[in-house]
Amino acid sequence: MYRTHTCGELRSSDIGKQVTLAGWVQYIREKGAVSWIVLRDRYGVTQLVFEEGRSQASVLEQLKGIGRECVLQVKGAVVERYSKNSEQETGAIEILVDTLNLLNPSSTPPFTIEEETDGGEDIRMKYRYLDLRRPTLRRNLALRYQVNRAVRNYLDTQGFWDIETPFLIKSTPEGARDFVVPSRMNEGEFYALPQSPQTFKQLLMVSGYDRYYQIVKCFRDEDLRADRQPEFTQIDCEMAFVEQEDVLNTFEGLFKHVFKEVKGIELTDAFPRMTWDDAMWHYGNDKPDIRFGMKLQNLKVDGDYKFEQLKKVDFKLFSEAQSIIGIVAKDAAEWTRKQLDELTEWVKRPQIGMGGLVNLKCNKDGSFKSSVDKFFTPVQLQELASFCAASANDLVLFVAGNEALTRKAASELRLHLGNQLGLRQPNEYAPLWVVDFPLLEETEVEGHWAARHHPFTAPKPEHIALMDDKTQYKNIKANAYDIVLNGTEIGGGSIRIFQRDLQEKMFAALGMSKEEAQEKFGFLLGAFEYGAPPHGGIAFGFDRLCALLGGQETIRDFIAFPKNNSGRDVMLDAPSAIDALQKKELGL
Amino acid sequence: MYRTHTCGELRSSDIGKQVTLAGWVQYIREKGAVSWIVLRDRYGVTQLVFEEGRSQASVLEQLKGIGRECVLQVKGAVVERYSKNSEQETGAIEILVDTLNLLNPSSTPPFTIEEETDGGEDIRMKYRYLDLRRPTLRRNLALRYQVNRAVRNYLDTQGFWDIETPFLIKSTPEGARDFVVPSRMNEGEFYALPQSPQTFKQLLMVSGYDRYYQIVKCFRDEDLRADRQPEFTQIDCEMAFVEQEDVLNTFEGLFKHVFKEVKGIELTDAFPRMTWDDAMWHYGNDKPDIRFGMKLQNLKVDGDYKFEQLKKVDFKLFSEAQSIIGIVAKDAAEWTRKQLDELTEWVKRPQIGMGGLVNLKCNKDGSFKSSVDKFFTPVQLQELASFCAASANDLVLFVAGNEALTRKAASELRLHLGNQLGLRQPNEYAPLWVVDFPLLEETEVEGHWAARHHPFTAPKPEHIALMDDKTQYKNIKANAYDIVLNGTEIGGGSIRIFQRDLQEKMFAALGMSKEEAQEKFGFLLGAFEYGAPPHGGIAFGFDRLCALLGGQETIRDFIAFPKNNSGRDVMLDAPSAIDALQKKELGL
Repeated sequence: MYRTHTCGELRSSDIGKQVTLAGWVQYIREKGAVSWIVLRDRYGVTQLVFEEGRSQASVLEQLKGIGRECVLQVKGAVVERYSKNSEQETGAIEILVDTLNLLNPSSTPPFTIEEETDGGEDIRMKYRYLDLRRPTLRRNLALRYQVNRAVRNYLDTQGFWDIETPFLIKSTPEGARDFVVPSRMNEGEFYALPQSPQTFKQLLMVSGYDRYYQIVKCFRDEDLRADRQPEFTQIDCEMAFVEQEDVLNTFEGLFKHVFKEVKGIELTDAFPRMTWDDAMWHYGNDKPDIRFGMKLQNLKVDGDYKFEQLKKVDFKLFSEAQSIIGIVAKDAAEWTRKQLDELTEWVKRPQIGMGGLVNLKCNKDGSFKSSVDKFFTPVQLQELASFCAASANDLVLFVAGNEALTRKAASELRLHLGNQLGLRQPNEYAPLWVVDFPLLEETEVEGHWAARHHPFTAPKPEHIALMDDKTQYKNIKANAYDIVLNGTEIGGGSIRIFQRDLQEKMFAALGMSKEEAQEKFGFLLGAFEYGAPPHGGIAFGFDRLCALLGGQETIRDFIAFPKNNSGRDVMLDAPSAIDALQKKELGL
Repeated sequence: MYRTHTCGELRSSDIGKQVTLAGWVQYIREKGAVSWIVLRDRYGVTQLVFEEGRSQASVLEQLKGIGRECVLQVKGAVVERYSKNSEQETGAIEILVDTLNLLNPSSTPPFTIEEETDGGEDIRMKYRYLDLRRPTLRRNLALRYQVNRAVRNYLDTQGFWDIETPFLIKSTPEGARDFVVPSRMNEGEFYALPQSPQTFKQLLMVSGYDRYYQIVKCFRDEDLRADRQPEFTQIDCEMAFVEQEDVLNTFEGLFKHVFKEVKGIELTDAFPRMTWDDAMWHYGNDKPDIRFGMKLQNLKVDGDYKFEQLKKVDFKLFSEAQSIIGIVAKDAAEWTRKQLDELTEWVKRPQIGMGGLVNLKCNKDGSFKSSVDKFFTPVQLQELASFCAASANDLVLFVAGNEALTRKAASELRLHLGNQLGLRQPNEYAPLWVVDFPLLEETEVEGHWAARHHPFTAPKPEHIALMDDKTQYKNIKANAYDIVLNGTEIGGGSIRIFQRDLQEKMFAALGMSKEEAQEKFGFLLGAFEYGAPPHGGIAFGFDRLCALLGGQETIRDFIAFPKNNSGRDVMLDAPSAIDALQKKELGL
């Protein structure tokens, strides 16, 4: 061993000991006859001291060749520091070095290796091995390991077995594109990399393994959005002989365990549950941030007036709109004209796409003032405020237009106002189960339906009969559920189909012919013939969960070696050309 | 939940309880008015009882539709069994069923789902989900999870972090072929699947992560031998600031922990260490089974007589042979002519390739008898026996010929004799470290050298100078080590090169041009410029380790969904053709 202690270990109680440390030079400081080096490793930092008179001349001479990020091994005595640093765990001591061994020199790094670096994204990706030295990345990967460990420990207590599923599987593209792998031994044929171990975990239930999990890489060849990776990690779980309630309870337990172990936070209350219908109605999306209220006020939905009095108002924007939704911003009646103009511009951005924003100020004196005063009588304004449950000093904002667009806009506006009003506190955690998702959703091609979750999700038992009537597809709800934290979906799952005939009906609903179903999923249909138990499960986005627990938005810095937005590893320079012989052997 | 208890849970103390169980019908037995079903799940089996008079007529009626492997939910009372089964954990009780719910019927399985099945390999691979129900596979996967858990728990206590490395990397074929993945977003370019995370774990050491591990899938596109898989699992570990001794001690600890946790065996002694030279000299291979002695007796090696007296013997087979090796079989002097003939045939098989086998019987009366008596005087025979340390009643066997072939044959013969003499007890575990491997080995192309372990392995410091002289390559030893258990290599590793110039020298020794080295491994050479610490590690074949701990030879039944010898998943029917659009998008 190159060391007797790590750089995070020594304390006052070690004073007088002879120790050996090894690590990286964080920085060097000189003041007259004294030099200090702060030596760093995974465990912390320790200060080394060199002083004329106290240190050997040869050691002082060696110091001249030492720069940042050099790797040193030093031997010396633990001594008390003159000026202690209470913010450093080792801040009470320093090492009076008597032997210095330069294990490896370092060129000057292309960016500073500190909490805040001067390196841009590109250079840091290229020199990822240096970026990973920065404290923020080290903390992120430490947290990731902690989460990993907490998940495994909890699932072990619950009787789950980690069972590995294959990576070289069959290509059955469905929604997302598969990455494929040409087979040399079976020329002209291809494996696919799994988008998830879905069918394998179901087979394991059929095989009687009862409770399965994996923390496993999955692959999707999609055009990458800012925060997507072609390879990502899933906490993948499945249980047999369970109903939805059992799955929710088991994984609510997982969540509480992880929060306690990793964040020290006890989430004592049961997580609220909300139907998908309610989530869409009250929040305009299926992953509501429930750290704050501000529910949407549905005045008109799909042409149907919920606030009857509006029918009498001759205001074209409202009367022509399919839907009208209001939001009450508490105590914001006194927002300035400038603030309101900015909000209007905000909803008019292409990402939101609204034509404009109507406001209604509920003044403290009981009067009302609106941007569209002339279309309303004072009584009507009062009734409108009252319908929206607005109080004196509140501001009500209205968007109107096409139902889907307006609901989405209202949802975004709610989050935006939540941010402006400081209602989205990063240290507050509001988990939520969203349940009763629709089984199917119509695709862009009219009359074509896709699985909302995936084709293995079971309809609610009472809705199975609706599977025979295409006009009823939109009304079929599934035993499917998402777990949402602070407005971000971090996991989702469902109770699965476990009967061959129902699975065939589902494939047919998705427009798959019998032959196609058999060719792609014959093994699963076959398995359902030999005693498949009822089962269900869930999968969590591990990268996303870690980022959320780390209080950050992007997943990239919670992955040791991520790809960039073009799916490239710029450090390795991959993907890259392969040689002609390799191609020939693969029959490409 | 479909059950209140599992099928492995109920005991006498539960008699009188109302319970609900769910599981598979293992078998049904009828005797007059009584029927029994043995219900099975992951946790065990429980007997259900149905009897005219005691059970409702409707339940008895339902029984008629129930066959093997049907999935049932049953409710009833725990009652005492008339005839108890002490071999079943639940053998003291049975369930008097009052409600029977057929959750899913089952067709008749294509083979019996029992410890010993009537199904051949092919059909069991096709219906892997049924084969996985058999107790032997369930035990294997349970053991695999236990090993997984024990490894993770130990490494956690030692400060290792599980850090995921990427699967879509750069193709740098070296020895084995890479599986490649065409990139859609970067047309004409390919990712490769990792043969191991070797360079990434080294980069993590450069990044200061100090102790890393993963239980991770690796991929090699090799022609498959009987017991190889194109995707396999590795326990992959790396440590910084360590010397060989630290690595050996750390992972000897891992082994001991796993043996204790999984097998209940305390391996108290330090594992013996043997140099590669000694292993080859005394055992004829680099993974000796040291459960028994029978070391090779080197009479002549590479033309050099170690037993001088042989020079005087005019026996052509010996005098013309490059090497002569003897093996002493204890107390086997009285083996029959038939047994000796069989041994001779055994060494003459093409797999061994010897021309014949010379024997020397050391009779109990002190006389000697050899198959080649006429070439030796009685005194010479005695001296020969004495050189080989044979005693009265021993049998000495000799093989002679080309050095490499003869050594290999002697090694195989030793193992064969060990089996015949009952010296290789499956419940005895003899772990061993083999150390000081050669750094390089000459390939089939004369003058071309390959890395014995891999190109990142460090030569012993005292041998670094030899790197400058190609004639010395064969004498360079590496800080490389294997862990061997009962004659099987289950892990190997090395101290790594961490200096750019030495790494470049190594690449050059392997015949790689500067440009090629830069193109393939520029990122690693770059990393070594910015303060790389000394580091080393090890990787274990997880599938193999599990098979050994499970007392079995083949890894396939320790993998949930293995491929066959053609690299096919016959259950999925993968690999398979992909559609033209998919190919076009990938530019293939």
